[in-house]
Amino acid sequence: MNKIYNPKRQDWKDVLMRPTQTVADIEGLVNTIFEKVKLGGDTILKNYTQQFDKVNLDNLLVSQDEIKEAKSLVSEDLKAAIQLAKSNIEVFHTAQKTGRVEVETTTGVSCWQEKRPIQKVGLYIPGGTAPLFSTILMLAVPATIAGCSEIVLCSPPDKEGKLNPAILYTANLCGVTKIVKVGGIQAIAGMTFGTETIPQVYKIFGPGNQYVTVAKQIATKHGVAIDMPAGPSELLVVADDSANAAFVASDLLSQAEHGVDSQVILVSTSKEMINAVEKEVAVQLEDLPRKEIARQAIANSKLIYVESDKEAVDLINEYGPEHYIVCVENEDFYIDNTQNAGSVFIGNYTPESAGDYASGTNHTLPTNGYAKQYSGVNLDSFLKSMTFQKISEEGILAIGNAIELMAEAEGLKAHKNAVTLRLNSLKK
Amino acid sequence: MNKIYNPKRQDWKDVLMRPTQTVADIEGLVNTIFEKVKLGGDTILKNYTQQFDKVNLDNLLVSQDEIKEAKSLVSEDLKAAIQLAKSNIEVFHTAQKTGRVEVETTTGVSCWQEKRPIQKVGLYIPGGTAPLFSTILMLAVPATIAGCSEIVLCSPPDKEGKLNPAILYTANLCGVTKIVKVGGIQAIAGMTFGTETIPQVYKIFGPGNQYVTVAKQIATKHGVAIDMPAGPSELLVVADDSANAAFVASDLLSQAEHGVDSQVILVSTSKEMINAVEKEVAVQLEDLPRKEIARQAIANSKLIYVESDKEAVDLINEYGPEHYIVCVENEDFYIDNTQNAGSVFIGNYTPESAGDYASGTNHTLPTNGYAKQYSGVNLDSFLKSMTFQKISEEGILAIGNAIELMAEAEGLKAHKNAVTLRLNSLKK
Repeated sequence: MNKIYNPKRQDWKDVLMRPTQTVADIEGLVNTIFEKVKLGGDTILKNYTQQFDKVNLDNLLVSQDEIKEAKSLVSEDLKAAIQLAKSNIEVFHTAQKTGRVEVETTTGVSCWQEKRPIQKVGLYIPGGTAPLFSTILMLAVPATIAGCSEIVLCSPPDKEGKLNPAILYTANLCGVTKIVKVGGIQAIAGMTFGTETIPQVYKIFGPGNQYVTVAKQIATKHGVAIDMPAGPSELLVVADDSANAAFVASDLLSQAEHGVDSQVILVSTSKEMINAVEKEVAVQLEDLPRKEIARQAIANSKLIYVESDKEAVDLINEYGPEHYIVCVENEDFYIDNTQNAGSVFIGNYTPESAGDYASGTNHTLPTNGYAKQYSGVNLDSFLKSMTFQKISEEGILAIGNAIELMAEAEGLKAHKNAVTLRLNSLKK
Repeated sequence: MNKIYNPKRQDWKDVLMRPTQTVADIEGLVNTIFEKVKLGGDTILKNYTQQFDKVNLDNLLVSQDEIKEAKSLVSEDLKAAIQLAKSNIEVFHTAQKTGRVEVETTTGVSCWQEKRPIQKVGLYIPGGTAPLFSTILMLAVPATIAGCSEIVLCSPPDKEGKLNPAILYTANLCGVTKIVKVGGIQAIAGMTFGTETIPQVYKIFGPGNQYVTVAKQIATKHGVAIDMPAGPSELLVVADDSANAAFVASDLLSQAEHGVDSQVILVSTSKEMINAVEKEVAVQLEDLPRKEIARQAIANSKLIYVESDKEAVDLINEYGPEHYIVCVENEDFYIDNTQNAGSVFIGNYTPESAGDYASGTNHTLPTNGYAKQYSGVNLDSFLKSMTFQKISEEGILAIGNAIELMAEAEGLKAHKNAVTLRLNSLKK
């Protein structure tokens, strides 16, 4: 771990530098696969599934029998845990509903804003060793609350042509309308253009490796929206002497086990806490099954000592952490003054893993400093707002002249004319 | 105008095809300018301003004297009109404020969502013959309500090195913190990287030509967000015999005068209305100063007859119009069933130009079918939502076991461990 004492402001940018990603050389491959899937549909998807996932599938669509089988394979304990998490996520995301906003801006001029669901959304869930069924909860639950009518989920099959039972169970539980066994670039291409099996969607959500990340970027060039730009996951903890060093170390390690490029930062006004956390990390690391991954991430991690809370919060705002744990006595100061963060975990009994799974907040969050301008996934991510206006005769008489003047000043005569015609009709 | 009767559903995609944009060949130029501005700052901006705008500027920043002079040059009538528009926009966008959303998802597990301003935003306002001061109202007013602390505006100077007085007046009125005389690709690059004069911003808003559009796309690769992807402006009117053909024609023309690639569509269940509008368009077109532009856009426009309201609304949802005028007897049917539209104008006295200038709604809207998944600019465009959670001892005892089970099932032992340590500490 790298200890940094009192970094100067002009050095913050370097101190807080994130690992870079190399994506440019993937673009060619992505464009090729997109072009082929656009023309060839399911046949091409099956070919790539054979090539990349080493399995030959007759049917990409998950059947009711497969879902039934999955239900029997998930333990009752895990089902109950998933149900608890689902319930909390539902409560928090349902509370985010907003009603119609309506005002009469001028007498006779009614304006209102309404949110309506994005009709078709696609969720990508990676395969591999860790079946991220928790991400299905985070995406399908708000999609269902929003009222999206088509919720497609794509995930790569294993060599037996199956998806993990927990993935199937959770997808079925959360209202996914179609589960498709296809992964990688070809899955994103399928959702972008539509195939015989996959409906074309308007917005794609979900995590993925660098191939999926680049594919999602390219999808935006073909008229599809995505949840947010991606980057390695990251955690910043701010802790003073009121924190528990073992707890803090366990949080840093839970971030570090995600990948060797995970970012882990501790900011503290206490040198004792920094030293205590460093020792605890070394001890706890040894017991982790993913310790080789975590060790590499920890090697690049930073323990930053600053002299004041003010300095700490300025540094944190400069970084804009995805996950942000606040374990300090003066927590309100940090909560009130932090401008840029994805999700904030407050106090000694609020580990990041609570938000990853079951507190109710969403775990799809802006990385890479994007917390400065992007929201994490929330109910609104599955809605778009539309505006409406209805103007009466009285209303157009009240604001018509202003419109005429402004249109004229912008050199747009036809814009003016649309008002003049109406005003003249009312003078008769 | 192209009249189409009862198009078959399988032909809708072709019938509703939008004009394509050619942008690929601009990317090289954009990347070059970005690279130079990143390294050379203001000096490079000044060089490009000399090259593209034909003026040599010592100082890119607009001075207080220039603003004072502008105020004296704008007529009192226009000032009053701008003030009326500003007031309506303020009322509607202030009404969009949402409070903190807070719930206790499980006893002892408090989750809340709060929106905080994007601290630094950049607004781009094109130059040229039409000074789009109305767009400043649409962007700077909500930015100010949101509480953005830095609001930078860039706009290209004329050959005398000046900005249009209406632009300066409106920018100053609406709380823009810095007005910079620079346009085109170099302005977007300046806001992306920051220069001596231009602060680096987190999100860039505003319209522009194809160079600016591509520059905004490229900016997203450098960590900046943009308001939305761009495309030519468009209007769809649905009208039955209760509509006024002259009014409808004036609305179609006000869209058509924007540019030769503007999209103009009339959908109607009345062949008489289609014929009447066609005649009115021909008459009104002749009087427009921008008639050559409008004529070309009108030549590509479509008058589509369909037999039922149901068919009409399905077709409209397939298109997803940016501007959408509803002049029909059964307006509620259209309002309730339209899923995809940017801004909706209802009734005979609600021309599109009302929303373009003064009704209070925003005129920065999703084009190109993006209404299917993007909102128009609104108050939330200048905010990001952050989530918070605070879990008590009781709370972690209630959900801790579920987190342990889920983390274990996802193979993430350190995630589990962060909870186990806390649960164990409470058992002692």
